[in-house]
Amino acid sequence: MQTLADQPIQGIRSAFLDFVGDPFYTDDASSVRYISDGLLVVENGVIVDFGSYENLRNHYTNIPITTYSNNLVMPGFIDTHIHYSQYEIIAAYGEQLLEWLNKYVFPTEKKFKDKSHAKKIAALFLDELLKQGTTTALVFATVHAESVDAFFEGASHRNLRMICGKVLMDRNAPSYLTDTPETAYEETKKLIQKWHNHNRLLYAITPRFAITSTNEQLKIAGKLLQEFPDIYLHTHLSENIQEVQWVAKLFPNSLGYLDVYDRAGLVGKKSVFAHGVQLTDAEFERLSEAKAAISFCPTSNLFLGSGLFRLSQAKSNQHPVKVGLGTDVGAGTSFSLLHTANEAYKVMQLQGKPLSAFKALFLATLGGAQALSIEDKLGNFEPGKEADFIVLDLHATPLMANRTSRFPAQSLEDLAEKVFGLMMLSDDRAVQAVYIAGKLAHSLATVL
Amino acid sequence: MQTLADQPIQGIRSAFLDFVGDPFYTDDASSVRYISDGLLVVENGVIVDFGSYENLRNHYTNIPITTYSNNLVMPGFIDTHIHYSQYEIIAAYGEQLLEWLNKYVFPTEKKFKDKSHAKKIAALFLDELLKQGTTTALVFATVHAESVDAFFEGASHRNLRMICGKVLMDRNAPSYLTDTPETAYEETKKLIQKWHNHNRLLYAITPRFAITSTNEQLKIAGKLLQEFPDIYLHTHLSENIQEVQWVAKLFPNSLGYLDVYDRAGLVGKKSVFAHGVQLTDAEFERLSEAKAAISFCPTSNLFLGSGLFRLSQAKSNQHPVKVGLGTDVGAGTSFSLLHTANEAYKVMQLQGKPLSAFKALFLATLGGAQALSIEDKLGNFEPGKEADFIVLDLHATPLMANRTSRFPAQSLEDLAEKVFGLMMLSDDRAVQAVYIAGKLAHSLATVL
Repeated sequence: MQTLADQPIQGIRSAFLDFVGDPFYTDDASSVRYISDGLLVVENGVIVDFGSYENLRNHYTNIPITTYSNNLVMPGFIDTHIHYSQYEIIAAYGEQLLEWLNKYVFPTEKKFKDKSHAKKIAALFLDELLKQGTTTALVFATVHAESVDAFFEGASHRNLRMICGKVLMDRNAPSYLTDTPETAYEETKKLIQKWHNHNRLLYAITPRFAITSTNEQLKIAGKLLQEFPDIYLHTHLSENIQEVQWVAKLFPNSLGYLDVYDRAGLVGKKSVFAHGVQLTDAEFERLSEAKAAISFCPTSNLFLGSGLFRLSQAKSNQHPVKVGLGTDVGAGTSFSLLHTANEAYKVMQLQGKPLSAFKALFLATLGGAQALSIEDKLGNFEPGKEADFIVLDLHATPLMANRTSRFPAQSLEDLAEKVFGLMMLSDDRAVQAVYIAGKLAHSLATVL
Repeated sequence: MQTLADQPIQGIRSAFLDFVGDPFYTDDASSVRYISDGLLVVENGVIVDFGSYENLRNHYTNIPITTYSNNLVMPGFIDTHIHYSQYEIIAAYGEQLLEWLNKYVFPTEKKFKDKSHAKKIAALFLDELLKQGTTTALVFATVHAESVDAFFEGASHRNLRMICGKVLMDRNAPSYLTDTPETAYEETKKLIQKWHNHNRLLYAITPRFAITSTNEQLKIAGKLLQEFPDIYLHTHLSENIQEVQWVAKLFPNSLGYLDVYDRAGLVGKKSVFAHGVQLTDAEFERLSEAKAAISFCPTSNLFLGSGLFRLSQAKSNQHPVKVGLGTDVGAGTSFSLLHTANEAYKVMQLQGKPLSAFKALFLATLGGAQALSIEDKLGNFEPGKEADFIVLDLHATPLMANRTSRFPAQSLEDLAEKVFGLMMLSDDRAVQAVYIAGKLAHSLATVL
């Protein structure tokens, strides 16, 4: 098994883009770091130095340097909400959330009781993520402990920093997919002890959503969070109008959807709620106060017709909420966070509030890391962080090459325009190479 | 120069999908034609026979047959609204319609006064269309006659059936892009005489929209339509709320946006109006009555934040309007009609009305041909029609291959599900080959 400590010192020379602040709250000059000819120095899988090639070259005269000319190196993308078990049912036709779950999702999740199936899909899923430049994700498994084992084994084999958890569901789902409050507790506890902080892996307590968990089970999830305070809480929240109405009926004493989770002790600084399309202003305020995060999943929200997430409200000055981007595959129809940024732009244009490429790419990197409380480990090129990064080709297709001539960019404004082209026009052909903990893990140029 | 008459008889054997009716108005069994092992016979660029391989094989024992196993052959896609001059500014950041025109479109259109620039972009544009499987398009040039010549020369060289016209603009645009009613008339007339029915080319009188043409110029366009009754009228209509408000101010005596065109004699059965996002019910009725067509451009409508086109209203039983799909590049951010169908699905999901793959693919083929009044020439595999067709690979990426196993499909229902995957997940890598008038014009497998 690979570890962070099996590599000597090495350098990557290229143009680099990362974020040192939040462009939603500061100007680009303060938040965007662009080095048109930079050097990233990696030792034992960790970034040890980063700056302009000119400034650093004399400090590193004897290390091997890989040069990517005419490319842009960015931190690996972070997907804050995705279901690995839905790999095979991506782009399933014709339904909105609740019917889509019954018709497509539940039958396919049944198969993950079989660990060999789970292992096969986990491998396809992880390879697809890497191909798209995503190096870390917060992942739904299924209700089966086997599905979590299979996923973490695949992620560990690839030395990835991944967060996952067993789904908790004890009602409103087929019997083959339900657990109980008691088995949920026991199995989750065992999985936490087995996987949390094993290599780069982290665990998330994962009730599917308030519809498929009794209040008793939600309280068990809260109890687990108290026992393991550095563990994540990952669930869905206020995605679809019918869902919100059903939750109101199921929990007549709650003040709203978020309040259901709140009363169970599930709303804290390591809680990540997918969607939030239907959230009220008061709920945004409560998420801000609790320092909880939202995963904004624009492709999925369009594909299922859920609606338009109010990103401007989430990123308000008064009540800021941590936000990352999520593909939400299989309701999201692309594994690419660049494509997800493209759809996010459209969701925001429909609200008359264009989303700049820098803001979108912040959400896909440092913003995602903050949403997952791993900004001490990932999200930008600060020395001390783990060296997961991607090499992008802004000329990957003839159309992109014509749209984005003259790279590297010579100013922030020029760069903004060029990376906007990348976000609107690219696909996996633009992800030329992916490094995990300093090691080449995917490359278009090389057969590994 | 190639002509339709320079090829001997040949056969294509594969699975085939085309439409023989409108799936918005009849069931799939009556509108969708699927032949899992079919033979398409082409002579001199024209389809001379089409049916199951089993039935036809004995009639064509001595012709060369090209077999595409595990592929799906469809009629070439028809893009009912696109701007070739906007190739370079595709995916320009941050504006809605009117500001976007001023900031990005007008400056780039200025360059098309230079015919050598126009020729270069026309070549890139036409190659990109073919790569994406689009074989016919209704195209905006610029105000310059040179831009029309350059485009038609490039299309003629490739033996394509293309429709284009000089833009008419005599106000509310930079002086370097305006003509006058008189020059509009003279230049358009010359271009019609030069290009209409030259090889496979057709002409469209092309006022940009009511904002940039005086009433006098619109009436000149109407006069041209009377003089040349088989010529197209191609313009924009009711895309954006601010645009509609401005038109109301500019034409205080009109009953609405469509009425402005109607009073100038521009609403007829060869009129194609792009967008129509803001149309009233009465305007839909008038378009139905006039047998005019709308180009539905979902990607563009999302990218510019224009809104959600009411396709269900357009395809109503009471007042049916002809509808085709348009990419509307450069406000559309993809040349692919498959990707445009993907975005159309999302636009309709936001309205709670899922769009089936068959309906979407109908719009991209026979529906587009009907919108452009060329259903006697193109749109499906009826003998006598021109042999523009594309070979699709439903397994073009690992994700698609996993999602869409077991092809050819064995039933219409199975096929619907598989082509929905194609429409949601594919890109140009799924367009394996493109034939124009029976000749291979683009292929992923072969260097031509």
